[in-house]
Amino acid sequence: MKNHLPGVFSVSHLYSAILRGDVSCLAKAITLSESEKPTDQKKAGALLTQLLPHTGQSIRLGITGSPGVGKSTFIDAFGKYATSLGKKVAVLAVDPSSEKTKGSILGDKTRMEELSRDALAFIRPTASRHTLGGVAEKTREAILLCEAAGYEIIIVETVGVGQSETAVHNMVDFFLLLQLAGAGDELQGIKKGIMEMADGVVITKADGDNEKRARQAQVQFQHALHLFQLPESGWRPRVLTASATQKKGIADVWKMIEEFWKTTSSSGFFEEHRRQQQLIWFRQNTETLMRAKMLGSKKIIQQMKTLEQKIKEGKIIPSVAAQKIIQSL
Amino acid sequence: MKNHLPGVFSVSHLYSAILRGDVSCLAKAITLSESEKPTDQKKAGALLTQLLPHTGQSIRLGITGSPGVGKSTFIDAFGKYATSLGKKVAVLAVDPSSEKTKGSILGDKTRMEELSRDALAFIRPTASRHTLGGVAEKTREAILLCEAAGYEIIIVETVGVGQSETAVHNMVDFFLLLQLAGAGDELQGIKKGIMEMADGVVITKADGDNEKRARQAQVQFQHALHLFQLPESGWRPRVLTASATQKKGIADVWKMIEEFWKTTSSSGFFEEHRRQQQLIWFRQNTETLMRAKMLGSKKIIQQMKTLEQKIKEGKIIPSVAAQKIIQSL
Repeated sequence: MKNHLPGVFSVSHLYSAILRGDVSCLAKAITLSESEKPTDQKKAGALLTQLLPHTGQSIRLGITGSPGVGKSTFIDAFGKYATSLGKKVAVLAVDPSSEKTKGSILGDKTRMEELSRDALAFIRPTASRHTLGGVAEKTREAILLCEAAGYEIIIVETVGVGQSETAVHNMVDFFLLLQLAGAGDELQGIKKGIMEMADGVVITKADGDNEKRARQAQVQFQHALHLFQLPESGWRPRVLTASATQKKGIADVWKMIEEFWKTTSSSGFFEEHRRQQQLIWFRQNTETLMRAKMLGSKKIIQQMKTLEQKIKEGKIIPSVAAQKIIQSL
Repeated sequence: MKNHLPGVFSVSHLYSAILRGDVSCLAKAITLSESEKPTDQKKAGALLTQLLPHTGQSIRLGITGSPGVGKSTFIDAFGKYATSLGKKVAVLAVDPSSEKTKGSILGDKTRMEELSRDALAFIRPTASRHTLGGVAEKTREAILLCEAAGYEIIIVETVGVGQSETAVHNMVDFFLLLQLAGAGDELQGIKKGIMEMADGVVITKADGDNEKRARQAQVQFQHALHLFQLPESGWRPRVLTASATQKKGIADVWKMIEEFWKTTSSSGFFEEHRRQQQLIWFRQNTETLMRAKMLGSKKIIQQMKTLEQKIKEGKIIPSVAAQKIIQSL
């Protein structure tokens, strides 16, 4: 990333280039917003504030699924379908472990071979280093930058480590869970807390021998989802099957998302949900920064460690320990 | 609660009275810990620290379910069954709305008629007023106080408003979801996020005409729970049916909890889980106090309101707004 030299571009230059849809300047602006240098941060803040009136017009789509579910292949096929409709598609990948695996899991454009060669598509992994508590705060800014550059479908992909799904769920309009039909009529276990976030589930690799199992899985999921209350959105999550390699069911996924958009737009949920997400972003970011400020003190970190040890040994109750920290601030 | 006059009892008096199992002093100590007066807080902290070596030996049981599920009746029957085994049972009710409904939903001992007359039982609603962010931080302290007083089963009941289930889930060993079979073969919808917290589900009111429906619901839940990965505890959640009025299935619920305890104790999960909960308590409480400190400033509150308004109007991005707050601290 170092060769981007984000510092040498002025805010006004980036502003007009992004509005023109200049991909290279979009990439530079994302790098700028990810930078930890205070001067870069200030520039990124100014740029984003100026671009703000030009954001918001996309559909923001979160996609999650365990490794092996065929996420890259699905996004490749889905993205190609969307660009075939003339839509500009951006893929942002949230990978909390990207520091360790850089270049292997993410950043590797060969993961989405067809889409990465498509002029209407923009693919960008976003690292999450140093964002204590917020796996993907910077991804929210990247979404806004992509929107300003005219992207109409923003896919935020998460590999599903730690709290990344919750973070992504909080920044998208529609949350899609990809799931594999298991061997026999068993399903591959779902990670705790995921299913209830989903606005839609797609059983992947529904082709060949697997097609029957995929349909069985579809029925099982539909039953399970019916156990839940109708979500606030008023949208009853749907379960579809798809084969990315055979390009089957991909159009139906898009149709589902469009229907979701129509339903929730006319009810007013869509806009209200986004407003709430903005406020959540504000509050979470305030707390993240506050925590970072607190943990910027070596003395406090040392005190926390000592207190945690005492808690483990049963020598102090946590609420009293917390008071001690606050008194030291 | 005012007639308790907690201030007039010395810490050492309360300490020995609680260890003797004095119910009236236990109630006073809980009131003391709930008080917001700094002197009371200090005394409560000292008392809890002294009592700490005498805590931890109970099984902590969270019970949740929507209104109408028969929670009071179930807890009444379950508690009576436990006291019939010679166990001392404490019931703590977490009610985020208790300020408004005091005396109606909670605090009303007629809700658990039989149990409230049982010498082995202690019933206590805990209000949650003024605990920003933490619905039930004080309940954690009440659990410790009850344990010091010799209670072996601590039931933490939640009415399921807002984030109270998550809070209760974070403070108990076993989380039990009560659920009603719906009309026909429909289930009453489950609140988002609840099912995946449950270590056990009990379909209530499984008697008379309802019995068949309850069994159907049991099967549906069992299927749904099998979609999930085996939780960290290694314990596969079970689904039972029970009738509190006919005292059917109550013993099985206790048997399930005992089995859970045996399984997770021998694997080491039980103790490790409690250690983790202590650390979570510490971190959450630190953040709650930090937030309270921040919001103790009228200037900051005013600034937050102004910024939230600007965010709603699309004039500032949340991350820039958050930075402004931090700069003002």
